[in-house]
Amino acid sequence: MFENLTGITASIFTTIAVLPQVYKVIKTKSAEDISLWMFASLLIGVGSWTVYGILKNDWPIILTNGLSFLFNAAMVYVKLVYSNPKQPKP
Amino acid sequence: MFENLTGITASIFTTIAVLPQVYKVIKTKSAEDISLWMFASLLIGVGSWTVYGILKNDWPIILTNGLSFLFNAAMVYVKLVYSNPKQPKP
Repeated sequence: MFENLTGITASIFTTIAVLPQVYKVIKTKSAEDISLWMFASLLIGVGSWTVYGILKNDWPIILTNGLSFLFNAAMVYVKLVYSNPKQPKP
Repeated sequence: MFENLTGITASIFTTIAVLPQVYKVIKTKSAEDISLWMFASLLIGVGSWTVYGILKNDWPIILTNGLSFLFNAAMVYVKLVYSNPKQPKP
């Protein structure tokens, strides 16, 4: 029971974590400090976890990592949209 | 076998993902675009996964999430050190 609650808490926090970052980038229209490599690596990682879940037919793994994949894909998208290299102002 | 390889790939990429972000912040000395809430949420999440692993006596879960906890704690640290609110230049 306590194990399950701990696992559910862990799943929720790791899955939703990227959302405040997506929100911040959209609000500030700035993503320069963000590492594309971090979110590319997370995409590969949670994508692989999703495949692992499918192979094991494990729905909690598929659901949490599938959602994470979508959220991280959104993050990569806003990073690419709002990332402008620093340039001297004219 | 293929399942195990997929799980190992997933573990490696999700665990190391934050390192390029830590490196980028240290290199550029800039962390303003980064959401503290994202990494606080990840800390709670992977911390909970570590507790879950301890409760289940599951070493791969303890190891990968314990490492993630350390890496994310480093990220929170550099975020706090290098995050300066935007101020008009004097």
